[in-house]
Amino acid sequence: MPGKIRTAQTVSLDIPAAEQPALHNRWHPDKTVKIECVDWTGGQIGNNDSAEDVRTVDLTKIHYLTGPFEIKGAEPGDLLVVNITDVQPFDHSPWGFTGIFDRQNGGGFLEEHYPKAAKAIWDFDGIYCTSRHIPGVRFAGLVHPGILGCAPSREVLFEWNRRESDLISACVHSHPNKTVAQPPIVMNAHAGQATGDLKMKIAREGARTIPGRPEHGGNVDINNISRGSTTYLPVHVPGASFSVGDLHFSQGDGEISFCGAIEIAGVITIKFDLIKNGVQSRAIKSPVFRPGDVAPHFGPGRYLTFEGFSVDENGKQHFMDATVAYRQACLRAIEYLKQFGYSGEQIYLLLSCAPIKGAIAGIVDIPNVCTTLGIPMDIFDFDISIEAVPKKRDLGSCPISSV
Amino acid sequence: MPGKIRTAQTVSLDIPAAEQPALHNRWHPDKTVKIECVDWTGGQIGNNDSAEDVRTVDLTKIHYLTGPFEIKGAEPGDLLVVNITDVQPFDHSPWGFTGIFDRQNGGGFLEEHYPKAAKAIWDFDGIYCTSRHIPGVRFAGLVHPGILGCAPSREVLFEWNRRESDLISACVHSHPNKTVAQPPIVMNAHAGQATGDLKMKIAREGARTIPGRPEHGGNVDINNISRGSTTYLPVHVPGASFSVGDLHFSQGDGEISFCGAIEIAGVITIKFDLIKNGVQSRAIKSPVFRPGDVAPHFGPGRYLTFEGFSVDENGKQHFMDATVAYRQACLRAIEYLKQFGYSGEQIYLLLSCAPIKGAIAGIVDIPNVCTTLGIPMDIFDFDISIEAVPKKRDLGSCPISSV
Amino acid sequence: MPGKIRTAQTVSLDIPAAEQPALHNRWHPDKTVKIECVDWTGGQIGNNDSAEDVRTVDLTKIHYLTGPFEIKGAEPGDLLVVNITDVQPFDHSPWGFTGIFDRQNGGGFLEEHYPKAAKAIWDFDGIYCTSRHIPGVRFAGLVHPGILGCAPSREVLFEWNRRESDLISACVHSHPNKTVAQPPIVMNAHAGQATGDLKMKIAREGARTIPGRPEHGGNVDINNISRGSTTYLPVHVPGASFSVGDLHFSQGDGEISFCGAIEIAGVITIKFDLIKNGVQSRAIKSPVFRPGDVAPHFGPGRYLTFEGFSVDENGKQHFMDATVAYRQACLRAIEYLKQFGYSGEQIYLLLSCAPIKGAIAGIVDIPNVCTTLGIPMDIFDFDISIEAVPKKRDLGSCPISSV
Amino acid sequence: MPGKIRTAQTVSLDIPAAEQPALHNRWHPDKTVKIECVDWTGGQIGNNDSAEDVRTVDLTKIHYLTGPFEIKGAEPGDLLVVNITDVQPFDHSPWGFTGIFDRQNGGGFLEEHYPKAAKAIWDFDGIYCTSRHIPGVRFAGLVHPGILGCAPSREVLFEWNRRESDLISACVHSHPNKTVAQPPIVMNAHAGQATGDLKMKIAREGARTIPGRPEHGGNVDINNISRGSTTYLPVHVPGASFSVGDLHFSQGDGEISFCGAIEIAGVITIKFDLIKNGVQSRAIKSPVFRPGDVAPHFGPGRYLTFEGFSVDENGKQHFMDATVAYRQACLRAIEYLKQFGYSGEQIYLLLSCAPIKGAIAGIVDIPNVCTTLGIPMDIFDFDISIEAVPKKRDLGSCPISSV
Repeated sequence: MPGKIRTAQTVSLDIPAAEQPALHNRWHPDKTVKIECVDWTGGQIGNNDSAEDVRTVDLTKIHYLTGPFEIKGAEPGDLLVVNITDVQPFDHSPWGFTGIFDRQNGGGFLEEHYPKAAKAIWDFDGIYCTSRHIPGVRFAGLVHPGILGCAPSREVLFEWNRRESDLISACVHSHPNKTVAQPPIVMNAHAGQATGDLKMKIAREGARTIPGRPEHGGNVDINNISRGSTTYLPVHVPGASFSVGDLHFSQGDGEISFCGAIEIAGVITIKFDLIKNGVQSRAIKSPVFRPGDVAPHFGPGRYLTFEGFSVDENGKQHFMDATVAYRQACLRAIEYLKQFGYSGEQIYLLLSCAPIKGAIAGIVDIPNVCTTLGIPMDIFDFDISIEAVPKKRDLGSCPISSV
Repeated sequence: MPGKIRTAQTVSLDIPAAEQPALHNRWHPDKTVKIECVDWTGGQIGNNDSAEDVRTVDLTKIHYLTGPFEIKGAEPGDLLVVNITDVQPFDHSPWGFTGIFDRQNGGGFLEEHYPKAAKAIWDFDGIYCTSRHIPGVRFAGLVHPGILGCAPSREVLFEWNRRESDLISACVHSHPNKTVAQPPIVMNAHAGQATGDLKMKIAREGARTIPGRPEHGGNVDINNISRGSTTYLPVHVPGASFSVGDLHFSQGDGEISFCGAIEIAGVITIKFDLIKNGVQSRAIKSPVFRPGDVAPHFGPGRYLTFEGFSVDENGKQHFMDATVAYRQACLRAIEYLKQFGYSGEQIYLLLSCAPIKGAIAGIVDIPNVCTTLGIPMDIFDFDISIEAVPKKRDLGSCPISSV
Repeated sequence: MPGKIRTAQTVSLDIPAAEQPALHNRWHPDKTVKIECVDWTGGQIGNNDSAEDVRTVDLTKIHYLTGPFEIKGAEPGDLLVVNITDVQPFDHSPWGFTGIFDRQNGGGFLEEHYPKAAKAIWDFDGIYCTSRHIPGVRFAGLVHPGILGCAPSREVLFEWNRRESDLISACVHSHPNKTVAQPPIVMNAHAGQATGDLKMKIAREGARTIPGRPEHGGNVDINNISRGSTTYLPVHVPGASFSVGDLHFSQGDGEISFCGAIEIAGVITIKFDLIKNGVQSRAIKSPVFRPGDVAPHFGPGRYLTFEGFSVDENGKQHFMDATVAYRQACLRAIEYLKQFGYSGEQIYLLLSCAPIKGAIAGIVDIPNVCTTLGIPMDIFDFDISIEAVPKKRDLGSCPISSV
Repeated sequence: MPGKIRTAQTVSLDIPAAEQPALHNRWHPDKTVKIECVDWTGGQIGNNDSAEDVRTVDLTKIHYLTGPFEIKGAEPGDLLVVNITDVQPFDHSPWGFTGIFDRQNGGGFLEEHYPKAAKAIWDFDGIYCTSRHIPGVRFAGLVHPGILGCAPSREVLFEWNRRESDLISACVHSHPNKTVAQPPIVMNAHAGQATGDLKMKIAREGARTIPGRPEHGGNVDINNISRGSTTYLPVHVPGASFSVGDLHFSQGDGEISFCGAIEIAGVITIKFDLIKNGVQSRAIKSPVFRPGDVAPHFGPGRYLTFEGFSVDENGKQHFMDATVAYRQACLRAIEYLKQFGYSGEQIYLLLSCAPIKGAIAGIVDIPNVCTTLGIPMDIFDFDISIEAVPKKRDLGSCPISSV
């Protein structure tokens, strides 16, 4: 008879994340082994009505993961099977936040249009959420971890550092002031239980956790790796060294405002299994997953869907650029919903965290990619269909930094 | 009492598309007014077991649209409401094709990996299809038009030509041998009923129909603009001059092989309506739509989903490039399915036309976009789950050009 | 290469069904072998605005099936696999009807409340339908055959006649005026190609087609045996003698008004297969099926659902009677929708044919069964949710017999 | 800013339910006001491998509800809006049970076939469950309360007692040994906070909670009144006196084994609202609800569906009896699944609690109702499709009483 599910790791919301040895914020193979999760900012954002904490967030002190967990018997070349059987916010912390980062400090997908920091607090009512900063919407969370992955081997880590460094070099002349990647940085590296020389080594070499990466997944921000999902992760080091974190109560496809999901602290329940030698026997180079069979679901006819193409907002034609195309779909949706009384920031935040669908429609018709962004109309208290003549409502406001 | 639904336009499959005045293959506002559709190659591809016709397809003789249809009362600034109440292949032509174009003649999303022409013929059994060239799969079609839109105004047309011409100019030095856009071309322009000077003007100025474009939609290749869908199209000229064509029996997100849907001739049934002044009153700059409530549907847990990141197959790190990321997801899926006995070309064709889902997962975590590609496992006769140890089956072959 | 799908059987809508040898209206094993279908009344109901034809319908001249079809190799004990790959109304007959039968001539589930004949004509617009007699609703059809089955063996036929005759005997004193079953009747028996003595034998012995029966299915009126479904039918006679008919454009669970679906003539496309000895090897006594993966689909949260219990409208407590309970759910739904301006007859007709869900919730809590009836709110033009204060609209009327 | 959700009522699993004043097991309007819930047997069933506790369960000590809760402002004639925003088993009690009652002590839907007590224990792994007594299946719970309702007024209570008493009287000669209803009984009445004369009055008059009843709902056992659902309940007494209990981790349509759901203790989160005078203004005589938009969901094509008709297992023809018909569908499904190695009792238990669909297909074709029972194939570890030749597996056993 199975017993009560074992808590592999607890965390505290009262102690700074950087002081908790069960957490870390670098991917590195030399950590020692060791699932409650803190929120991805490590508690920097408060449940209040000011965007100052978002504006001044310290981006070197984020993405605190819980782990690494040693999986008995796991060896390089295996697939670690991660079956998420539940994930929830803490009972005692029934709220989360969505933020727009200041253009000078993190930015986001639409930073040229919305350069100032802003935020929305979401309150949870069971599996549903509402925000005092974005009235008129309510939806159920498809709770998931933004980050999950096994630690890289030294070879994999060096390959990451090599290619991201190459990108930085390649852009140094063309885009001298643009941050195109985040190389290793010693400041605020948190290496969990590691201390002394090992900690310093991790700080100097360890890959930042912001990007997802093909070899192990990591910060993939895939919103349907949720309850019931099974993810197959390549193992790179003995014991797998699995870590998880950055829980999201809900996230729209793209997580466009960067701090775009409803960020939470909470608990994830995982059932592990191994497929020995699965990397080779299944020909897997990047993680693969199956979503769970439980998700908020709306009929297909309930999605109001916007099209976006590779022509940017200045009328410039780009060549087959899906990123530009999706940005256009986002801008179109914002323009539309503003008519009902929302500010642009409110919708930018909303599209980041509500269960919107971002799809690649056509990716071959030169020079235009066509992408689509579908909004489930049923999350609104009022009718947002095209048939409804839009009228401005009083839909309050979200905190925006004045600086 | 409504009568029998009026056939607005019939076409012939026996007469070359270029000789039928009900068809045209340029977007231009000066056409005169006027829904059976020919296939998008105008009948160039045969139901046979050779890829030669695909290899030598004349890409100046494609995308024959039916129309333009004048919508009574439509004026610039209105939204044309296009409710597709049915779309089907012709009863007498129960088959379609999917092709990979030769890299020198059209190419496709994975042209560097699969440079040779190939094709698959699909036979229809009611609403389902199978292919003798890709055994082991069967799925229901979500039949839809690849192209629908209203004619551009002169201003819109000139803007298209301006910006696409700018792109060509900008790339002429950096990519001298690459076709980055398709400017107007007189050869094989088909201007429907237009003759003489008007026809020549259309041929000289008329926009090619290959790319979708934000102002009117056009070749959007959105696979859920299908039965029951409602699309809201900006009107640019008096009477709207609506055209439709490029019917697809089924298409995967991205239509990756370019000639990637199951291309058919057939009949589309449309109910039109107008929202007067809707462009302004709804703040619509690009088409918006609601999918229909009838679609083949699989539980979310039945999708085997591959992740793709902005690191290309040569290990080069790209900056936030969703196009690169989606290409990786496609390559990963091909690599996986090859283990069951398919050739790469067979799967490339299959991913292009089967009901796969391509989503934008995370688009903010520099430098990597994460995209996902989900394959419904239930379309296969055998188990393709990760749990099933893959073994090579005899899955035949598809015709591939030997040249 | 598969050829065009063969038409196994055409029918005429201009010749009385009783004169067409491809049709029959009795289940009997002695028929000789032989898929267009006439409507189940054999053309007795017209596309007009009077209920007189419904009131006077000749119920001995109904349920004309197409068939029987001999399936090569089928033997008693096999399972006939019936994969419906398409089913559609005739292009040239884009309409159907729903009727309430007069209490004296057929009746229906709510005959005590709605004793008079009434009808609604439905016009088809692609895969959608609307009715001039029930304005304000529009939905896509889940087209299906009401009847499908293999012919009974003599033993099975005699068992049917035995047990239905027993029921009649048992009720003759308790319910002397009630029709509780329909024994064989010579009048208007239509035995297809059979003539002379054989025809007379069939007329005398042949089972009426009104009830479904466990051994073969028959008139099951299951609305999701539609496109893509696969039904497994026990074979009772050599060659299976499969018949099909009574096509429905759409039907609600229960088909409550008896002539309750949207009755049509049309074409069904079927792919047959056999599981040899499947009755025993799969332990199958009654038909089993898998619905297709294409169905109009609404999110679960879009169903307004009514509860019904085994307490009848006169306050009488019945013991665990699911039939009484479902009748109550129907009456509750009618009462509710009348507030929006419909007549009771309009809603009775609507619940019979729209895609409503009838479920058995609890069937063990003595003395009350609880059943539910769910109405998809999205088929209405206006808001029928409980939150919307109902107001009477002008929703026209349906023809009702004045006699 | 909303605060933490208030716990309206806690319960103890260590104190007998009958000793907790927050609980009660009679419906009566004279209770005083006052959401954790005990399981419906009040803790009589243990997490062990014997069915003795099920066999000897004391059915006068069940259905302990939490409440009644006074809803401020509620008056007779209002509709109480019950929005369930979450419902979960206790963290510290991650298991539940499904039982078959002995035919002499409660029985169930198939008591003639399975007369002995049996049970299955289910262990929860996040939102999923498995049973050591029914190996080979795993599914997510659609957690819900079996019972919810407002207290009856005296008039409603007397009407219940009147009509159920009439049923008992009517059956006393025809079925002298059959329990057809459960009249008020003093033994083990638990009246919550009531004491003395009031408690005795409640014990003498109070309606048993076993049956659902049309005027208020009560024990409806509707499995999709779950997370996100909204139920509209008629209010009969000032303050509504709402009670809730009998939580189910999962239940199949019909809850056929009586103790058929996965019975749990746990916590339900409810958001209340009122529609003043809604009973009249919405024409509501029985509860109405909208399911939530979050449910485990399988594609329609993944349900293996059994048909059942009003002919019982002895070959007797019943007249339009949906209860008989559904019983046949259940028996057919059991017969089928036994071939894979399960005992009849294991499947009887499984159909009671897994997410199976029970639908009313045709309810008008005299003399046979047709019902269907659909089993989601994806909950099994192995292939149960008809195409798979069934073979006996070792699927263990469930405890069955030897007496």
